[in-house]
Amino acid sequence: MTSGSWEEFFAIHLPPPDFEDNRSLLKEFCERHEHYGNKIVLVTSGGTTVPLEHNTVRFVDNFSAGTRGSASTEYFLEHGYAVIFMHRQKSLEPFTRHFTGQKLLDMLDIQERGPNTTITVKPDSVDVLAPILLRYKAAHAAGAILHVSFTTVSEYFWLLRAACECLANLGPRAVLYLAAAVSDFYVPKDCVPTHKIQSESGPPIIQLHLVPKMLAPLVNLWVPTAYVVSFKLETDENLLVPKARAALEKYKHKMVVGNMLQTRHHRVIMVTPDATQEIILTREEVHAGVDIESSIVLEIVRAHAEHLRGAGAGAAAGGADWAPREPR
Amino acid sequence: MTSGSWEEFFAIHLPPPDFEDNRSLLKEFCERHEHYGNKIVLVTSGGTTVPLEHNTVRFVDNFSAGTRGSASTEYFLEHGYAVIFMHRQKSLEPFTRHFTGQKLLDMLDIQERGPNTTITVKPDSVDVLAPILLRYKAAHAAGAILHVSFTTVSEYFWLLRAACECLANLGPRAVLYLAAAVSDFYVPKDCVPTHKIQSESGPPIIQLHLVPKMLAPLVNLWVPTAYVVSFKLETDENLLVPKARAALEKYKHKMVVGNMLQTRHHRVIMVTPDATQEIILTREEVHAGVDIESSIVLEIVRAHAEHLRGAGAGAAAGGADWAPREPR
Repeated sequence: MTSGSWEEFFAIHLPPPDFEDNRSLLKEFCERHEHYGNKIVLVTSGGTTVPLEHNTVRFVDNFSAGTRGSASTEYFLEHGYAVIFMHRQKSLEPFTRHFTGQKLLDMLDIQERGPNTTITVKPDSVDVLAPILLRYKAAHAAGAILHVSFTTVSEYFWLLRAACECLANLGPRAVLYLAAAVSDFYVPKDCVPTHKIQSESGPPIIQLHLVPKMLAPLVNLWVPTAYVVSFKLETDENLLVPKARAALEKYKHKMVVGNMLQTRHHRVIMVTPDATQEIILTREEVHAGVDIESSIVLEIVRAHAEHLRGAGAGAAAGGADWAPREPR
Repeated sequence: MTSGSWEEFFAIHLPPPDFEDNRSLLKEFCERHEHYGNKIVLVTSGGTTVPLEHNTVRFVDNFSAGTRGSASTEYFLEHGYAVIFMHRQKSLEPFTRHFTGQKLLDMLDIQERGPNTTITVKPDSVDVLAPILLRYKAAHAAGAILHVSFTTVSEYFWLLRAACECLANLGPRAVLYLAAAVSDFYVPKDCVPTHKIQSESGPPIIQLHLVPKMLAPLVNLWVPTAYVVSFKLETDENLLVPKARAALEKYKHKMVVGNMLQTRHHRVIMVTPDATQEIILTREEVHAGVDIESSIVLEIVRAHAEHLRGAGAGAAAGGADWAPREPR
């Protein structure tokens, strides 16, 4: 069974209910930053789901907490990029990712004085919280970050295409940092039962279909001059670099960041058509809480600057019309 | 294909790595509250996963944010119960559930004064935060809540049995409030591939197996005198009450709380062997942010008090040895 075409996928799967609202937000965000000559990165983050029932009780999910995407977003903001943070609902988000669970409540002291009650952050927590809070407030005050969220793989694809349509105008000033863990398989809409599968009827067999590879139309048609980075997560070390190279050759984009499930927080391999570069955190860096994403983003910011120089002096003015089209 | 026995499930699936630590925590918690003559409720919350690969990239998940369990925990604490909050990792938790995403960061003001920088909660957010923070601090100061977490269905079952072993000593003073969305199907350990399924080999067919019904040994063997409440989530209204009644007849426990996926936040049906009671929030209550869990828990606290009276005056002293055994 082969995967259907991407056109067919969009024909079968209707846009999500909040699609038009999100499209307006994306459009306004991109136009504003294009106007100011800013660079924009689209960061996708978290896993997509594949519903097994229409009234979804059960679904197939992809493992991803959203660490890579949420951390990277903070570093792109530091480098002056505007960020579209397209994330799985309830996955980790930039800034708040540092305070999951009860951490924030445990940092608070309450001074009960009836109507004059005050709540303050404990002095020894201020050191940790203050720098993050300042960066959070600065990013939001500048309108430098837009959050949009998805759950299913079909919602993801609709948002991804809409974001690309808006980013196309920025030409080579746009970066796509596709860190989301997107389902390879799905259950076509007409094969999904309406009601919850009943266990009395015995265990179901789930026949999955291949999801079309959206990277193909994305690179060739939607944002042909953008700097596109895709991610590859593997559990078998031997497959990592060969599969990254194969993807680059097939889709003709700029970079694949390869990582192993087991070591992804302290080791990645950045593969471009010309080179392979490994980033490894030392044990000391891991203990000190250094994010490997700071190094990944730094490398991409450099490579993107080079891409912009290659695109010519007109790059600052953006525009997909004049820029050299990626050869197929 | 039939489901294997529960004994077989525990024989095939090894306990999770942190199992002994959690078992010690459960034991200490139950012994302490048993000593003080407290009632304990085990609240299970969130969905369990079924891994499709050993190095888990993909898994089948059950829809559940953990709203029911996390909200109910707060109300059980208010009624003086000690609570074992057994939840899916990263699902909603009591108290913090009110402040997901950026809500807490947006409530904070920072006064930058170098080393004397302070961070305070904005005055207009104090009204919302103060009562929740006070209840949070009181519950933790009293040691009235224990958090343990699971991800896979097998981790869930190991924790569930361990909790039951500790709760058995409390006899009828224990309540089990099984709100977690537990997988009905799983992929047996020896059918799970070690590495990530490669999409090049075409779409996989996933043959699921039935998970054994743990409610049977739980009610009959593990906590025979406890007050056991199970939950039923359906998407087909016509199946709700018949399936709830069938479960009560089959497992001989005390109550099934039935709810529809679409209306679960404002309507539930509480089914006992003798009665069916519906709880519906009015539109005004929904708008005012009333939790339906406050009514559900109130009903269960009442029913549990009756259960304790039925178990005889000795109930306060607890103990499964003397208490009437549930007929099969």
